[in-house]
This record gives sequence, C-alpha cells and structure tokens, in this order.
Amino acid sequence: MRILITGGAGFIGKRLADQLLRDGAFSLQGLEPQTIDKIILFDNVERENAPQDPRVESITGDINDARIIRKVTQNIDLAWHLAAIVSAAAEADFDLGMNVNLDGLLTLLNALRDLKSRPRLVFASGFAVFGGNLPDVVTDFTALTPQSSYGTQKAIGELLVADYSRRGFVDGRAVRLPTITVRPGKPNKAASSFVSSIIREPLAGKPAVCPVRGSTKVYVSSPRRAVESMLLAMQLSEATIGSGRTIPLPGITVSVEDMVATLERIGGIGATKLIAWEPDSEIQRIVDSWPTCVDDARARALGFHADADFEAIIRSHIEDELSRTTRSR
Amino acid sequence: MRILITGGAGFIGKRLADQLLRDGAFSLQGLEPQTIDKIILFDNVERENAPQDPRVESITGDINDARIIRKVTQNIDLAWHLAAIVSAAAEADFDLGMNVNLDGLLTLLNALRDLKSRPRLVFASGFAVFGGNLPDVVTDFTALTPQSSYGTQKAIGELLVADYSRRGFVDGRAVRLPTITVRPGKPNKAASSFVSSIIREPLAGKPAVCPVRGSTKVYVSSPRRAVESMLLAMQLSEATIGSGRTIPLPGITVSVEDMVATLERIGGIGATKLIAWEPDSEIQRIVDSWPTCVDDARARALGFHADADFEAIIRSHIEDELSRTTRSR
Repeated sequence: MRILITGGAGFIGKRLADQLLRDGAFSLQGLEPQTIDKIILFDNVERENAPQDPRVESITGDINDARIIRKVTQNIDLAWHLAAIVSAAAEADFDLGMNVNLDGLLTLLNALRDLKSRPRLVFASGFAVFGGNLPDVVTDFTALTPQSSYGTQKAIGELLVADYSRRGFVDGRAVRLPTITVRPGKPNKAASSFVSSIIREPLAGKPAVCPVRGSTKVYVSSPRRAVESMLLAMQLSEATIGSGRTIPLPGITVSVEDMVATLERIGGIGATKLIAWEPDSEIQRIVDSWPTCVDDARARALGFHADADFEAIIRSHIEDELSRTTRSR
Repeated sequence: MRILITGGAGFIGKRLADQLLRDGAFSLQGLEPQTIDKIILFDNVERENAPQDPRVESITGDINDARIIRKVTQNIDLAWHLAAIVSAAAEADFDLGMNVNLDGLLTLLNALRDLKSRPRLVFASGFAVFGGNLPDVVTDFTALTPQSSYGTQKAIGELLVADYSRRGFVDGRAVRLPTITVRPGKPNKAASSFVSSIIREPLAGKPAVCPVRGSTKVYVSSPRRAVESMLLAMQLSEATIGSGRTIPLPGITVSVEDMVATLERIGGIGATKLIAWEPDSEIQRIVDSWPTCVDDARARALGFHADADFEAIIRSHIEDELSRTTRSR
C-alpha cells in the first residue's frame, strides 16, 4: 500500500506518519489489513527529524506544480491532503491562499483522477467554512457562509471533493476539524494560533499573547483525537459514510477564560501572569465568526469522538509532547 | 458608463443588451442615471443579428483567456457574467465545465480585481446549487449540496463572488435564476431544456420530447422576469443588499403536466399530441435534485418578483417572440 501525506512536514502530518509507521499496516473497513510499503511525505519545507525509515520518502515542492504532484501521486492508494495556507496567512496574502488552498487542491485532485484507480482521499477542512449569523447549532444542513478567504477556500474544497467523488474520480472524504489545541512548536499565522500558545507557552514557563476576550468560546480537539479522526475517515467504507462526504468532527466547546483556569488548576503554575491580553480586532472578528456548537451526532454514529474535557486535552499534550521532549534531550 | 456582458450572444445576454440600448442610461440606486457609452458583448460565438449600434462592440474569445479578458474588462463599470456551460453539457464534459464555469469565472474576477476600481458584477447562478435530500422549502440558510458538476461550479462561483466582494476586489452579487421558460431558439444541452421546448415547439406546430414524468415539478421564470431581475440586481446598492450577496430569485412552481394543460387551454392546439414522452433517467435525476419551493421573502422585499402564473409566462413568450418573429419575416 502506497500512501501520500501532503503537508507531511506539518505537525498533524508528522503524527499521522509516525502512527502509520508504528502500525505497519492499514485496515480499510471490510478488508484485511494491508502492509504499508511506502509513505510519501510531501511538503514545501523539509520535515525536521524525518524518520529514518526505508518506507518513508520525503519530497519537497509546490502543491500547485502539476509535474511534481503527478510524480508524488504515482500508484498512490491513499492520500491525506493536509497542506494548506492557514487562516490569517490566507487573509493577509490572498493570492498565496488561492494558489495553495484552491489551485493546489485542484492540481492534486486532477493528478489523482488521472490515476484512474479511484484512490481514497481525506481532505482536511475546518469550521471556518461557517460564519456570520449562525444558528445556535450548526448541522450538516447549515449553509456555508465563510467570513474569511481561508474559510471560502475550504468550503470550495469540500464542494470539489464531493463532486470529484460523485463522478468516480476519487473516493474522497472531507473532515471539518475543530481548532486543534495544544499544537506543539511555535505560534503560527492561523487566527487560532493563540488557542494553543496560551496553554503551551505558560506550561513551558514562557509568556504568551491572547488576542481575544476571555469570554470568547472556541470549539477544540486535541492533536490525538485529530489524528485518530484522520485515520478513521480513511478507514470507513463509502457505503458507511453515505452521500454526505463532509464529516464535521466532534469537539468540545470551551471559553478562553475556562481554558486558562483549567491550566492554572492542573498545571499548578501562575499561567494568567504569563498571558498578555492584547486585543486584536481582526483576529477577534475571524474567531467570533466560527461556530462553537456543532451537531456531531452523525460523526459520533460513525465512530468519531471528542476529548472528554479540556483537562484531558492538556494532559494529553503533557504526555505526548512534554515528556517526549524531555526524553529526547 | 462602460458595460460588459459575458455570454453576450446568449438569449438572456441579447435581451439584456437590447434593453440597455433602448434605455440609453442606467440608474444605480441613489445615483443619477448615467449614459451608457459602450456595451461589450463577449461570447465564444458571434451574436446573430448583432445590433447595428455604435455603442455595441462584439468580441469573441475564450472566457478563460486572461489576455482577452483583460482587454474586454478595461475601464468597465458594470459586468454581467452570464457565460456558462449549461448543466447537461457540464455533466457530459467535466473539463469543459470546469474550464468555463470555474476557471473562466476566476479569470474574470481577477481581471476585474486588477482594475482596482471595484466594478459592480452580477453573476448568474441557479438553483442547481441545491440537491439531494432538501427541506420542503430552501432558504438562505440551506446548505448547498449540488448533485451535478454544473451545480457544484455555480456553488463555488457564489462563494468566490462573496469573498472577492468581502475583500473589496469587486462589488459582486449572485442571482440564483429559476429555470427560464420559454427560451427561444432550439433545444440546448441544459438538463432543463425540455422546460422550454415542450411549450415552444408545439406552439410552432412542431414535435417536442419530454424526458421527465408529467408529475415532475419545476421552479420557473419567464425571460422577461429574468432580465428585469438582472437589471435590478445591478441597480441595488450594496447597503440595500446587505451581507448575503446571493439572491435567490422568485419563481413559480408548476408541474410539467400543468404546463402542458395550460398550453392546451390557452394555445387552443393539440399540444399533448405533439409531445413525445421519452423518459431519460439521467435528466430525471438531475431535475429531481433541484428544489421546487424557495423562500423568496428577502428577494421580494428587495423588489424582485415572480410571474403571475404559468399562463402569463406563455403569453409573454407569444408577445415577445412569436409576434416579433412574424414582424421580422
């Protein structure tokens, strides 16, 4: 079995690859497990600490370069498409966002279509496809009204994945990911970057900036759950998923002030003192436009699930990242 | 004032241009009427019987050719984007549909953006953006779930027009047109082509084919109403339209058998004898996926309106097309 992960140098891509390498085989619903022969990690940057494993091939390039995308998709059975320009970056540089998030997806879809083998594709979307005057709970039947270029590009991506699948070019699925917290590494250009940094930085004794009000609610998931969901979305058969090819993933709804209070309580540190509250109206606007309550009944019935609570999210971060960092030092 | 109409050789484009030439000036809400200096009719085919008017310039080319699109958009104040590959044609030739309906729109949007004058744009969308398991009434809050590539491309177009407008690149509006009947001319590759031909052909004493069951309901508008709506969508100020830049136009819901019965009654001809009922499961599938009941309260409040009934639609066709054809012979 040959697997492609675009955005393979990103942190979800890394975790996904590491999990697949540990498992050594992948089970599609209704089929025997199949040995993983090759994982191609495609990104525009080199992965740091790439696994020294003969099954892994790291390739760097532009997702919008049809020649290289034809090369990395050759004989591919499964593809996770995680490569993206994140929300605030796509808002700051419209053309870059369109090139990667729209044209890049089309380049990939057309290369997969040309294989004529109907490869399976998981496309990472997000709740930024919603925005504006939303109902209290967003459902599979709620209109997509993105209020950012990133959200627009993800909404278009969902439509394209559905149509390429309906036509039999790929067997695609889109997953709408909640905001992932706690991301390891440094703050990035996502409008949601603070949702991780206000936890991650204080836990490491470092200062963090929170650009939104404490009462702001966010809909979140741990990286663990996100990776589990990415795997499950690939495993499920087409018949199980049904005609709605976009799956809104379960998450938990939490306010920023409750996140910080939880950190204080379980981390035993003066977290609030390390957080500078520096309002940024543009980030507040983008974050406020995202839904905080999602009907996840269909996703749960398919086997997806949320973290137990925000404390569990912090604990999984400590286990997965902080103890690991300590070990590798 | 300089005006661009893409799809300018199509029948809505023709009527729109003729109306604008008769009016000689165009009134934007809140502003004095402005003289129309130039109407550029852009299409991939030459317009038959193009008006001999110094204000009209007919240009043929490919909507996806950035060089020619830069030329036709030069100093444009208003653009109606009507050029499209219709539903059954976009289903039969996926690449052609994507090239015109998606890439062509992007080429136009980017050329208009480069003007930096924020030109006003009306984009012709349709109810094919909906499909599948729809609620009894589709509203502004109903998720877009197209079941055809044409519908997918139109849904993507609405999202792009909204985002390019939000970013201040254009002042765009999308109108979702009901199925237009009675179209003049010959049957085309739209899945909805029969909605016109079962009226038009018998009225001319010619045979017609109906590929769907008589009980099939359709949501329709006359060409007159469509052109009026196109004009109004351009006139309304941004403030009046508000943040929802897609306007679902009012139409009337009628069954195919009621259409035929109305024709028999007012045409005084043996219409049913001229119609061959030849079921086409693919056309039935596409047409069945379109909504037949639309919440048009917002559109009506903005001044858009539907035809009185199906009889009025037939009578307007007779007035506009049949008496005119007679005159010109």
